[in-house]
Amino acid sequence: MTRPIRLAISGASGRMGLALLNLVRDDARFELVRAVVSPQSARLGKAAYGDVSALRFSTWDATTGIDVVIDFSGPEGLGAALDVCEATGAALVTGTTGLDAAMEQRLAHAAERIAVLRAANFSLGVAVLTRLLREAAAALPDWDIDIVEAHHGRKEDAPSGTALALGHAAAAGRGAKLDDLAVYAREGRPGARQAGTIGFAVVRGGDIVGEHQALVMGQGERVELGHRATDRSIFARGALQSAAWIAGRAPGTWTIEDVIAA
Amino acid sequence: MTRPIRLAISGASGRMGLALLNLVRDDARFELVRAVVSPQSARLGKAAYGDVSALRFSTWDATTGIDVVIDFSGPEGLGAALDVCEATGAALVTGTTGLDAAMEQRLAHAAERIAVLRAANFSLGVAVLTRLLREAAAALPDWDIDIVEAHHGRKEDAPSGTALALGHAAAAGRGAKLDDLAVYAREGRPGARQAGTIGFAVVRGGDIVGEHQALVMGQGERVELGHRATDRSIFARGALQSAAWIAGRAPGTWTIEDVIAA
Amino acid sequence: MTRPIRLAISGASGRMGLALLNLVRDDARFELVRAVVSPQSARLGKAAYGDVSALRFSTWDATTGIDVVIDFSGPEGLGAALDVCEATGAALVTGTTGLDAAMEQRLAHAAERIAVLRAANFSLGVAVLTRLLREAAAALPDWDIDIVEAHHGRKEDAPSGTALALGHAAAAGRGAKLDDLAVYAREGRPGARQAGTIGFAVVRGGDIVGEHQALVMGQGERVELGHRATDRSIFARGALQSAAWIAGRAPGTWTIEDVIAA
Amino acid sequence: MTRPIRLAISGASGRMGLALLNLVRDDARFELVRAVVSPQSARLGKAAYGDVSALRFSTWDATTGIDVVIDFSGPEGLGAALDVCEATGAALVTGTTGLDAAMEQRLAHAAERIAVLRAANFSLGVAVLTRLLREAAAALPDWDIDIVEAHHGRKEDAPSGTALALGHAAAAGRGAKLDDLAVYAREGRPGARQAGTIGFAVVRGGDIVGEHQALVMGQGERVELGHRATDRSIFARGALQSAAWIAGRAPGTWTIEDVIAA
Repeated sequence: MTRPIRLAISGASGRMGLALLNLVRDDARFELVRAVVSPQSARLGKAAYGDVSALRFSTWDATTGIDVVIDFSGPEGLGAALDVCEATGAALVTGTTGLDAAMEQRLAHAAERIAVLRAANFSLGVAVLTRLLREAAAALPDWDIDIVEAHHGRKEDAPSGTALALGHAAAAGRGAKLDDLAVYAREGRPGARQAGTIGFAVVRGGDIVGEHQALVMGQGERVELGHRATDRSIFARGALQSAAWIAGRAPGTWTIEDVIAA
Repeated sequence: MTRPIRLAISGASGRMGLALLNLVRDDARFELVRAVVSPQSARLGKAAYGDVSALRFSTWDATTGIDVVIDFSGPEGLGAALDVCEATGAALVTGTTGLDAAMEQRLAHAAERIAVLRAANFSLGVAVLTRLLREAAAALPDWDIDIVEAHHGRKEDAPSGTALALGHAAAAGRGAKLDDLAVYAREGRPGARQAGTIGFAVVRGGDIVGEHQALVMGQGERVELGHRATDRSIFARGALQSAAWIAGRAPGTWTIEDVIAA
Repeated sequence: MTRPIRLAISGASGRMGLALLNLVRDDARFELVRAVVSPQSARLGKAAYGDVSALRFSTWDATTGIDVVIDFSGPEGLGAALDVCEATGAALVTGTTGLDAAMEQRLAHAAERIAVLRAANFSLGVAVLTRLLREAAAALPDWDIDIVEAHHGRKEDAPSGTALALGHAAAAGRGAKLDDLAVYAREGRPGARQAGTIGFAVVRGGDIVGEHQALVMGQGERVELGHRATDRSIFARGALQSAAWIAGRAPGTWTIEDVIAA
Repeated sequence: MTRPIRLAISGASGRMGLALLNLVRDDARFELVRAVVSPQSARLGKAAYGDVSALRFSTWDATTGIDVVIDFSGPEGLGAALDVCEATGAALVTGTTGLDAAMEQRLAHAAERIAVLRAANFSLGVAVLTRLLREAAAALPDWDIDIVEAHHGRKEDAPSGTALALGHAAAAGRGAKLDDLAVYAREGRPGARQAGTIGFAVVRGGDIVGEHQALVMGQGERVELGHRATDRSIFARGALQSAAWIAGRAPGTWTIEDVIAA
C-alpha cells in the first residue's frame, strides 16, 4: 500500500496492547485509528499517549476506515472485534487464546470472507525456529532430538508451551505425534535413550525472558537450533509484522509461519 | 534394493578411503567389491582388512558388478573412476576438489548418462545447516547475520571454507553475493554495523574438529543455528549415506542437499 | 548496620544516576538523602521522583548525614563529591573514568582517610568472570585462550573494553602482559596458532546488550567461561551492591573484586 | 627432576591402562618401567607395544626403581599396588573407585608415609570447573544455579556423576549440602523456583562424550561456566599430569584440585 495501514488495536489497555501502542507510534507503516478497550475499562476516554495525541481509548462505536484489527483482548473482546471485521472486511490478527468451540467455529466461518491470522506466540524468531526444526527432523530422521529451554524463576509450568510446540514440530517432521515420543524428564536411572524419542530439559532462574534450543544429535556431529528472547516487546513486533503482512491479503486462515514464508 | 549395494572405493588408501573402509565393514547396506589405489601405491595387492578378508587393494583391472563408486582419490584417480562409471553405468559420488576446466566439463557431460553427486563437505549436519541458514536469511530479511567458527590451532586459513559456504548460503537467501556483504574481521574502530552485511568471527585453539554457528539477530530476539563436529568420521559417514541415496537414481548432477531433502 | 545506609548520588540526572534513583527507591538497604546534579543542570530544584517524594535534585549545599556517595558525574563532579567525602568521612563509590594525573593522585591520597571503591564496569557477573578467568589461565597454563564477545550493531569499537579487560586478566594469570599475547583478528591466512597467544573474535548485531565468553582449550576438552548481560540496569545494581559493601569499611582503595570476594 | 619419572601402570590392560600406555609412549616426562596386569590376565607376558618395545605386561614380581604408580585396576589390584608403594616409597595416583571401608582406611594410613592422589574424574578441565563453580556460588550468593549436562544416548543414569559433583561444589560454596538444595527434574507444574535450590537438566543423544554447564543467574545478567569433553583420552592425560605433579611430593592425601592449584 502506498498509504499507511489503518490499524485498530483491540485490548489496547492490556500488557500487549500497551506494548503495541508504544511501538506503533514510531512505525511509518501504520496509522493508528482506534485503541479499543472494554466498556468497563477505567481507561475509557483517556488519551492513549498522554498529552501528545488526539487519540483516546474508546469502544467500537465507530468502525469504518479500518484495514487491520490486532486483537489481544480476551474471548469477549475478540467477539466484538470479529463483528467489526465481518461488517467492514478488515483483516484480523489475534493472539487471544482459550476460545470455546463456538468461537472457534465462528472464526473458521469468518475466515471464508476475511483474512484471519492466529498465533499463540508472535515471535518471528520462534516461528522461524519451529519451521527449521521440522525440516531438520525430517532431513535427519535417525538423529536424536532433545529440546532445552530456560525461563525466569517465576515460571510455574515445565516445559514451556513454546518448547512443547517445538516438540510437536519435530514430531511432525517425522510423521509422528509428540505424545508418542516425548520424554519430559530424566532422573535417577532412566536407562538408555529409546530411538526416536524427543527429550526435554528445563532450566529456571534469574529473569530469563525465554530461551529454547533443539539439539539434533548424530554420530560425531550435531546440529543446534536455538532462539533467545531478551525483550518481551518481540511479541508486539511480530504482531505488527503480521498486520503489515495481512493487509490486503485474501480471505483465509493464516499463521505466523505464512508471514515468515514470504 | 533388497541386495546390498555393490560399492567400489577409489582412493582407498588415503585418509578418507581408510575411514570409508573402516565404516563400510559393519554397514549392511553395502557389499564392498573393490578398494582401488593408484598403480604406484605401496598398498597395491595388500589385504584391505589385514587377515580377515579376501579383499585386496587393487587397480581398476576388473570393473563389472559395481553399483556405486565413491571417489576421494584426486583428479587423476577421478578420471579413471569416471571411465569405469561411464562404461558400466555405475553412479559416482566424489569429494575430489581442485579439478581443471576439462575435468569439470567431462563430469558435466557424464552426468547426462550416469548419476553424479559432488560435494566439498560430506557432513550431513553441515548440509542441513546450510539449507536452514539460507531459509532463515530469507525469512528474516532485516536481521543481522554473523558467523562464528572454531577450529584447532593448526588450521592456517580463516574463516574456514565451511564458514564461507555458510556465508554464501546466507547471501543467496537474500538474493545477494557474499562478496558484496562480507566483513571478515573487526578490529580497532570498525564503526557501526552496516545493514545487510555478514560478519565472521574466528576462534582457534585446542584440537577442535570444527564448529560453526550462525547468529541471526533481530531486536529483542535472535536465532542461533549451529553445527559441531567432534569426529572426522562424519565425512565418511556422509559419503556412504550419499552412496546409499544415489544407488539406482536417475542420471544428473546431484548435491549433498538432495540427500537430506529426501 | 541496623538503620538504612544514608546514600548520596552524585551525577543523579545522568543515565546511571537515573537508573540508581529508580532502583534505590525500592531497596530497603538504603535511605537516599541527596540527588546531586551540577549547578548548571536544568533539573536543579526539580523533584527527583515526580510528585511522590520530597527529595529534589540539588547541589552539595548540605553535606552532613551521609554514609556513602555513589558518583557517576564526570571528573568535575567527582572533585566536588570527594570534597564532601573527605570533609565528612563518607565512603566513595565511583565509576567516573578519564581522570587526569592530578585527580588520580587526589583519589589515592584520599584513600588514606576514607574508603574508596573504583570500577570501570560495575557488573558483579563480569567481576566474577574476570577473577575466574585469571584463575583458569593460571591453572591450565598450556591451554589456548580465545575471547568471543557480542554487542549490538551500533557499537563502534572492537573488541569491547570488557573483552580487553578479560584478556588482561587471562594474561595476568600467566604472569604476562596482554600486549605481548593478543591476536585481535584472524583473516585470510594467519597461519597456525602461536602458543600462548590470546585471540579475540567479535560479533555485532541486533540489540545485544553485551556477551563475553572465554574459551580455554586443551586437547580433547575445553572450559568455557561466559557472561551474558540482558539489561543495562546491572551496572546500577552493582554500584548499589558496592555501596552496601563499603559502608563502614576501613579506609583504602577497594575494587569490585573485593565486593565479590566477601 | 632432570631424569624422566619412572612410571608403573597398574591395571595396564584395562581401557584406562591402554590409553595411558598409548599416551606415555610419546611423553618425554616419563619412562615407563612396568605395565602391571593381574596374574590371571590373558595379556600376561605379551609385549605392551607390539613388536617395537621390550616392555611386557607383567605382575609386580620386581618393584624397585619406581617413582610413581598410576592405578586403574580395581580394588584388588589397588591393594597390590599399595604394597609396592609402601615398600618402596613410590607415590600413588589412583582412579579406582568402589573401595570398602578397610581399603579406605588403608589408603588413609598409607598417606602418612607416601604421597597419594585420588580422583573420581581425572579431567583437568572438570577439576578447574569444579573449583570455579564453588567460588562463583560463594561470590554471588543470591543468584540461581542450574546445571545442564549432555551425554550419549547409552548412558543409563541421570544426572551424571560429574554433574552431581558440580552440584556438591556449588552447595559447598554456600556452606550447604546438595541433598538439601537439589531439584533433579522439572515436569508438569513444579511451581516457582525456590530460592537457593540447585536444579539439574539432562540431555541425552548421539555420541556426546560429556558436556556440563553451570548457569549462575542473576537479575539482568548471568555467568555460564562450562566444560566440553570430546575425547575420552582426557582422563588418561589428567592422570599423567597428576603423576608428573606428585613425583617427589611430600606424603599426604592429595586431590586433582591440588594439581591445578599449582
